[in-house]
Amino acid sequence: MNLILLLLFQLIMTKNINKTKIGTRNSLTAKEYFDGILIGNTSILSKSITLIESSLLEHQKIAEELIELCLPKSGNSIRVGITGVPGVGKSTYIESLGTYLIEEKNKKVAVLTIDPSSKKSGGSILGDKTRMNSLSVNNNAFIRPSPSSGTLGGVAKATRETIILCEAAGFDTILIETVGVGQSEIEVKSMVDFFLLLMLAGAGDELQGIKRGIMEIADAIFINKADGENIDKANIAIQEYKNAIHFFPKNDNKWIPKVDSCSALENKNIDITWETIESFVTLTTSNGHFNQNRKQQAKYWLEHTINSSITALFYSNSNIKSKMNELESQVINEEISPFKAARDLLAIFKS
Amino acid sequence: MNLILLLLFQLIMTKNINKTKIGTRNSLTAKEYFDGILIGNTSILSKSITLIESSLLEHQKIAEELIELCLPKSGNSIRVGITGVPGVGKSTYIESLGTYLIEEKNKKVAVLTIDPSSKKSGGSILGDKTRMNSLSVNNNAFIRPSPSSGTLGGVAKATRETIILCEAAGFDTILIETVGVGQSEIEVKSMVDFFLLLMLAGAGDELQGIKRGIMEIADAIFINKADGENIDKANIAIQEYKNAIHFFPKNDNKWIPKVDSCSALENKNIDITWETIESFVTLTTSNGHFNQNRKQQAKYWLEHTINSSITALFYSNSNIKSKMNELESQVINEEISPFKAARDLLAIFKS
Repeated sequence: MNLILLLLFQLIMTKNINKTKIGTRNSLTAKEYFDGILIGNTSILSKSITLIESSLLEHQKIAEELIELCLPKSGNSIRVGITGVPGVGKSTYIESLGTYLIEEKNKKVAVLTIDPSSKKSGGSILGDKTRMNSLSVNNNAFIRPSPSSGTLGGVAKATRETIILCEAAGFDTILIETVGVGQSEIEVKSMVDFFLLLMLAGAGDELQGIKRGIMEIADAIFINKADGENIDKANIAIQEYKNAIHFFPKNDNKWIPKVDSCSALENKNIDITWETIESFVTLTTSNGHFNQNRKQQAKYWLEHTINSSITALFYSNSNIKSKMNELESQVINEEISPFKAARDLLAIFKS
Repeated sequence: MNLILLLLFQLIMTKNINKTKIGTRNSLTAKEYFDGILIGNTSILSKSITLIESSLLEHQKIAEELIELCLPKSGNSIRVGITGVPGVGKSTYIESLGTYLIEEKNKKVAVLTIDPSSKKSGGSILGDKTRMNSLSVNNNAFIRPSPSSGTLGGVAKATRETIILCEAAGFDTILIETVGVGQSEIEVKSMVDFFLLLMLAGAGDELQGIKRGIMEIADAIFINKADGENIDKANIAIQEYKNAIHFFPKNDNKWIPKVDSCSALENKNIDITWETIESFVTLTTSNGHFNQNRKQQAKYWLEHTINSSITALFYSNSNIKSKMNELESQVINEEISPFKAARDLLAIFKS
């Protein structure tokens, strides 16, 4: 009975919001966006993410207000980063894991994808939704690709703010997909609780695409496509990665990275990946590292944002711009030291 | 005959410089420092490094001029980063390698040590020199610890500038020692051609001190202390690290990291470590990555210096300082978002 009342209330709220404002795109107030998000209206959630991604000053002001409203309602999710080279089957895996979480674990799953290296513009939105057939039509799932343009810093900021909005909208599992070949993994590592690396059996050439340093920051490595003829190869790979991991530096949080295989295509071992994540959360919650990590991440993002904001302020200076190229090529050709060039530019900035 | 004339000239030059100015500490002109460095006067080299490390504005001005003078005379060395946890035997190894290079390969070796985590102040200078007995009294060696105080950024900048001075002074091999437990490795990786990681056999607990991500950026891993009862353990470790390395992402420069053992104490395999470095230089020179890496490093240091300079400008603002602590704790406790806090601080900075 209560449930029916709640649903009715949600329906009325949504309808009202739709009626009053939804016609004029992006014209809601922060409070109206917030109300829509709180009742889990994914249409309004989508619009509010677009707002966050907007570079228009008036949008940014509403976005800032909205984030502050959502912040007290956020944080109650498990944030998982998922990476691997193109072709490893990330989308199929996320489709499989997401469906499992919704159907078996009663979760609400938000999927955010980051690919700053992609210039495919809007195309990737359709691409992601097509690749995640059943998730994209599931009411308990929300799929959102990162903005296709913009700097990595901007994309990362938008993603971190999107996490807050999704959590306020009631999503309790946030899956963040990256391509595993760029800089984005370090950024993503700084916004998730758990970092999963998908690999293929028969390591070697396939690994060339993975950036150095990523294996060592993974909380789990799963060999995907462990099906059919690949099963034997996957078992060998598991053993080899386990050996490799044994020689990695230990985590402060006492977690020993898990190595196993799965087949997203055949829904095999998808439950094991989730159990791994749950074990991690149990361990790190009990030893305090879960919260400590989140606090450190918040601090990191404060410093990071300050840093990137003032750097942006610097590089947007027109006098700097005109001098920059000249000095940069002198530095690269070792005609002046990078330190002198930096000092010269800074003198321009200060004056 | 020419050699004798050269030596005589050097002697006279050195004496003149000593006579005219050396009495008044740090009072040479940039040109006088430069002349002293060019003839390989290590006393003047030492003083000029102290100048670089000084935070006094008048010293910084001379230092800047000096660096620009030295820059055209620099670059003709192999720069090697050496890291490993305390106790792995870095000093003994450097003593052994340095002596080998001077005696067998006719090299001039400069050793720079970085330990920003150490608060041991001046003590480490004596410590290093004591630990490197024979190198410290060798005329073809120059040992210089990093400034014991100052930020990591400052230490890194001073180290990179010290490399330039040492190269201008005719040192053709620069060994840079770091402790392998802090942030400094990424900085050092950005100023060397080759990055060597020293490890101990019987991996496991000893590795806890090594920072994650370091193994994957090493160009070689040598198991030190492979002597006496340790030899068998070292051989097993070699095989295991080789297996691990096989699963690391590949280097763009086509170099496959080498794994072997050595005993610095017994001077065993020290020649192999050097042959490894020479092979690396041969390979990367022929495929263009050696110079490309140096150019990228110069660009990195330009961006890095700009970044750290304007960040320093920001944090030294007294209004920022007074607001910072308050906002930081609000961010850590998730009362406000890091992005809003950063924006608030930036507004203070701009006004």
